[in-house]
Amino acid sequence: MRFNYKVILNILGLLLLLNGAFMMLCIPFSLHFQEGDLMPLLTSGGITMLVGYITFALTRRNRSKHLKKKDGYLIVTLGWLAMSVFGTLPYLLSGSIPNFTDAFFETISGFTTTGATILTDTESVDKGVLFWRSLTQWIGGMGIIVLAVAILPILGIGGMQLFVAEAPGISPDKLKPRINETAKRLWLIYVGLTLTEMMLLWIGGMTFYDAINHALTTMATGGFSTKNASIAYYQSPFIQYTIAFFMFLAGTNFTLTYFGLHGKFKTVYRNEEFRYYASFCILLTAIFAISIYMHSGQGLEKSFRDGLFQVISIITTTGYVTADYTQWTFSIVVLIFVMMFFGASAGSTAGGVKIVRHIVLIKNSILELKRQLHPSAIIPVRLNKKAVHRNITFNILAFIMIYISIFATGSVVMAWIGADFLTAIGSVATCLGNIGPGLGDVGPVDHFASIPDTGKWFLSFLMLLGRLELFTVLILMTPYFWRKT
Amino acid sequence: MRFNYKVILNILGLLLLLNGAFMMLCIPFSLHFQEGDLMPLLTSGGITMLVGYITFALTRRNRSKHLKKKDGYLIVTLGWLAMSVFGTLPYLLSGSIPNFTDAFFETISGFTTTGATILTDTESVDKGVLFWRSLTQWIGGMGIIVLAVAILPILGIGGMQLFVAEAPGISPDKLKPRINETAKRLWLIYVGLTLTEMMLLWIGGMTFYDAINHALTTMATGGFSTKNASIAYYQSPFIQYTIAFFMFLAGTNFTLTYFGLHGKFKTVYRNEEFRYYASFCILLTAIFAISIYMHSGQGLEKSFRDGLFQVISIITTTGYVTADYTQWTFSIVVLIFVMMFFGASAGSTAGGVKIVRHIVLIKNSILELKRQLHPSAIIPVRLNKKAVHRNITFNILAFIMIYISIFATGSVVMAWIGADFLTAIGSVATCLGNIGPGLGDVGPVDHFASIPDTGKWFLSFLMLLGRLELFTVLILMTPYFWRKT
Repeated sequence: MRFNYKVILNILGLLLLLNGAFMMLCIPFSLHFQEGDLMPLLTSGGITMLVGYITFALTRRNRSKHLKKKDGYLIVTLGWLAMSVFGTLPYLLSGSIPNFTDAFFETISGFTTTGATILTDTESVDKGVLFWRSLTQWIGGMGIIVLAVAILPILGIGGMQLFVAEAPGISPDKLKPRINETAKRLWLIYVGLTLTEMMLLWIGGMTFYDAINHALTTMATGGFSTKNASIAYYQSPFIQYTIAFFMFLAGTNFTLTYFGLHGKFKTVYRNEEFRYYASFCILLTAIFAISIYMHSGQGLEKSFRDGLFQVISIITTTGYVTADYTQWTFSIVVLIFVMMFFGASAGSTAGGVKIVRHIVLIKNSILELKRQLHPSAIIPVRLNKKAVHRNITFNILAFIMIYISIFATGSVVMAWIGADFLTAIGSVATCLGNIGPGLGDVGPVDHFASIPDTGKWFLSFLMLLGRLELFTVLILMTPYFWRKT
Repeated sequence: MRFNYKVILNILGLLLLLNGAFMMLCIPFSLHFQEGDLMPLLTSGGITMLVGYITFALTRRNRSKHLKKKDGYLIVTLGWLAMSVFGTLPYLLSGSIPNFTDAFFETISGFTTTGATILTDTESVDKGVLFWRSLTQWIGGMGIIVLAVAILPILGIGGMQLFVAEAPGISPDKLKPRINETAKRLWLIYVGLTLTEMMLLWIGGMTFYDAINHALTTMATGGFSTKNASIAYYQSPFIQYTIAFFMFLAGTNFTLTYFGLHGKFKTVYRNEEFRYYASFCILLTAIFAISIYMHSGQGLEKSFRDGLFQVISIITTTGYVTADYTQWTFSIVVLIFVMMFFGASAGSTAGGVKIVRHIVLIKNSILELKRQLHPSAIIPVRLNKKAVHRNITFNILAFIMIYISIFATGSVVMAWIGADFLTAIGSVATCLGNIGPGLGDVGPVDHFASIPDTGKWFLSFLMLLGRLELFTVLILMTPYFWRKT
């Protein structure tokens, strides 16, 4: 048999079972706020768990435990899709989003931690369902952590092997022990940071409900907010700085955070990607702050805060908004657009290209000039003082090129569907990079409701593509994948 | 000694001598039209030839004939710069462009065959000087042919080795015999095609003066026109189709044209880059024609002609205009923007990335997915049925990445200088790709006069960078280059 269908279905069943269980977590809010979304949520959770359980039970027996690489690609892609299809139920059954296209867009925007929304009035959605919306991002973030530290490196995708060797307590062998050991430790950090942020936001003046929602979507670098104005609703500097700080953490490689929490600051500091990540944030914040200060008439602190918040929000692909950045200077708008292609650290919950890939790209570009002068010399890229294998460098270059090609093709497609120039390139960049807000009609104070249905499906596909590091999805479209080996 | 300065200066002197002689070619038009640009042109030519001759004579004796690779980079970059500095004289002395920044921009836009102009009223410029403007592009085109077939492959730049093996009558050894043999043959084709086009345009109804000017700038894929409205001035379908046809030829690898003229059609047809180049043109013309026909209310023939002309003009990086393409549908505008990154064939006078690089890029991206499934297999890109050496593929990927990085950085810089979003990305894409018209304030019916001086210098630098295939210029900025070996 080409694929181990039984074990694939078994895992998908398990995922749906968990998905349904997560839906049940919305019940307390539904009960508290009494807005009529109790039955829809119970039904959604029930259906999802039932389908999950049946699938799981039917495939439980006689399943071979041996998973092949090809099975891995299928599980990851189908897993995200299955979660997203069933994740629409709370929206559909409650009537918050009556249309399946819109509901699917919102759900996959959640599970991919993108944060692009079709809701025109978020605040009118029932609180139980709204909590589900935030929860999809947080679940997506959990998925990404396993994916990044355990699955993608084994599938050999886009340089993910590079940083994983540094992960705590793992040796590069089988899938299972990795998931069990590493993922558990990192999930603990993920949960811990979410709770800490929630407490701080609560103390800072948010309601308990808003605090937990924003904590969930911050740590996932998701960016869904319970407020129409996003974080601009909260003018409290404490809240904004707190969120900025946790966005920064969410964009940091979780294995580094693990080391940091264990007092191994040298390991953190020595990590090149972290150093570049932090430097980019500092440098760009300075540029933004000065630029906003000079052009807006705002005070220095507010300019700095707006700059810092937006820089971190875009780089970490969170997508929260404290100001309409498209109204800032031309250079800031262009810079934000370029920053949409940065992505924060590999091994974080951030989407996009990731800084480690840019480092390899830039170093390799400079070295290519050196190679030009010394054609016979073998000059490898060095990262964290170790030579990067040429295959990995090659793979990273291919990754970035495919990313840009998809962006270019996607922009043409979106324009074809009817988007103007800025909307087309902005919507594709933001969805592929799992950020949230874009430019033009899908800018920071707008939403994706006005995009035609075909556009929504296309952007949904791009979100999945970007989130699963392109290769995982693209490989399913090659004849090589389906050919017998 | 690190560099062979004497021989470098000797060659630069020779180039200036030729540059001055070319200026003298404008005299007949100056005499005929009697607009008062005779003395300025004579003086310009005189000064340039004198400086050239002195430099040449002083460095003639005892010069070692041995040129090293490093000398090559310097000669190419300094050569283009020296030509551009002295090329400003006719504009400055005649007063057509009194400002040095503007004159330099116009001249380097000529020698790099870009075609971006700061002239707000081209038709008011004296005919002798205007002929010089067209001539700079034609000279630039000649330079590019030598560069592409003889110099860049030796310097090992960006996959230029790939197609040169196919060039007629050359073996990959020394610089000298290549220049003598291949370049001469291809120059002959260049001259022949220019004369043929001139005759056809003249027959088609252009004045002799306009015919020769447009023939010069077509074959160079330059795009300078003697008319303010560019080719839109000529509503004759014959003229527009003729120019479109010769633009297509100018964007074809000249060695292929050589084979074609010798009846070796199989060689032409078998060439993958040519097949893709022709296919792109056909496919895009169809898309453009249908789109224009559906949205403009124009007739079918006119829609087809406008589409064909603009597709070929952009892909070949010529930059002639028969219609304001920014007024077409969103998707066409986005598509034109994407097409600015195509570039036509390597070994033609076209700028930009070049199609052969895109082919390698696309093939490699697809193969990378295959490599993912078979990590231990060695799977090379194949071009024209031959395996491309991995170093070359690597170099091409690096080239494209650097190209895109410069585009992104350049856009931020231009926005910083004050350009809005579309103007910033449009001006950088069009100058780096040596096209001519961009988007926004520098669209097809606009000019670069309103760009601030710093912006003009920056864009001038980008034109040179793009024209010399990035590496030639960038390598001069590395410490490796200036280090003693």
